[in-house]
Amino acid sequence: MQLDEHSQDILFRTARTHSVWQDKPVSDELLRQIYDLMKWAPTSANCSPARIVFVKSAEAKQRLLPAMIEGNVEKTRTAPVTAIIAQDHEFFEKLPQLFPHADARSWFAGNQPLIDTTAFRNGTLQGAYLIMAARALGLDAGPMSGFDNAKVDQEFFAGTSIKSNFLINLGYGVSDKLFPRSPRLSFDEAAKIL
Amino acid sequence: MQLDEHSQDILFRTARTHSVWQDKPVSDELLRQIYDLMKWAPTSANCSPARIVFVKSAEAKQRLLPAMIEGNVEKTRTAPVTAIIAQDHEFFEKLPQLFPHADARSWFAGNQPLIDTTAFRNGTLQGAYLIMAARALGLDAGPMSGFDNAKVDQEFFAGTSIKSNFLINLGYGVSDKLFPRSPRLSFDEAAKIL
Repeated sequence: MQLDEHSQDILFRTARTHSVWQDKPVSDELLRQIYDLMKWAPTSANCSPARIVFVKSAEAKQRLLPAMIEGNVEKTRTAPVTAIIAQDHEFFEKLPQLFPHADARSWFAGNQPLIDTTAFRNGTLQGAYLIMAARALGLDAGPMSGFDNAKVDQEFFAGTSIKSNFLINLGYGVSDKLFPRSPRLSFDEAAKIL
Repeated sequence: MQLDEHSQDILFRTARTHSVWQDKPVSDELLRQIYDLMKWAPTSANCSPARIVFVKSAEAKQRLLPAMIEGNVEKTRTAPVTAIIAQDHEFFEKLPQLFPHADARSWFAGNQPLIDTTAFRNGTLQGAYLIMAARALGLDAGPMSGFDNAKVDQEFFAGTSIKSNFLINLGYGVSDKLFPRSPRLSFDEAAKIL
């Protein structure tokens, strides 16, 4: 019960962060397939705080672009889809549905620091799961933190308890436009076994 | 270039969070293989802030157990390995090595809120990548937030710029001890396409 080398490559070893995109659309059905994979991956008490806006139409892209730092405008404009990974800071209101075997809502309600940390941690996990699910389904991803979160929140989430976290361009990358891969930390620089 | 259905199942659809573990060890070599997959997955400016302690020996487990909430003690004691996912809040000092084509260190140095948010966001992404890499290599994972972070930091990271985030039990789970799977949010509850 493990992945073969080629599948490991698709997810990790040969996958790259892309900035230049083929002119090849991503269907709504494929976006639903991404969600139907990523939704199964674990969150604390199944709290599932991520809320995702798949920005796909030219009109929606025009609402997003003014929030991007300059270096991220063109890659975001040309990506077939940009996923806004956000999290609902009232996620705990759905715990009676998501975690029916305990009163998990009461673990959070009224404890704002715990709510905010849990929403950010678990929404971020789900963003990583989305990257992996997109790669599993043959897409390339280009995650980005270089944008104005407050502007995105104002434009897409005004009047809600949802806040943006990071963005992920999705599509089919142009491999010969990739930069050389940057080095990674060795095991001994990043980890130890006790 | 996509994963077959069985590989998608291993990562997402049939993978479960485990709490009861087979008495089957996890080799140091397999922990190094997990790192050698997860290290390739993306972080902002390749900042790679995650620092991982694989708690494996009985002695190291005894240092960790007093920090666990009661419901997480036995599963952590019996897991072959518990990975402490932490992040280094001085990660930017390694950017000249990790992102050599720009002065990325200067984007962070002195901006503590940006440092802390970037460390937490990207360390969490790397924790999710570790779960996926472990599953890709045939292991089961049991991630947990139910512990005292300050106690873990005192015991394992005193005098450093490293802070704990969450924990992941690793091993081979006992499938007939699993609870029924909890429901997930529908696409329309969690996402939209604009």
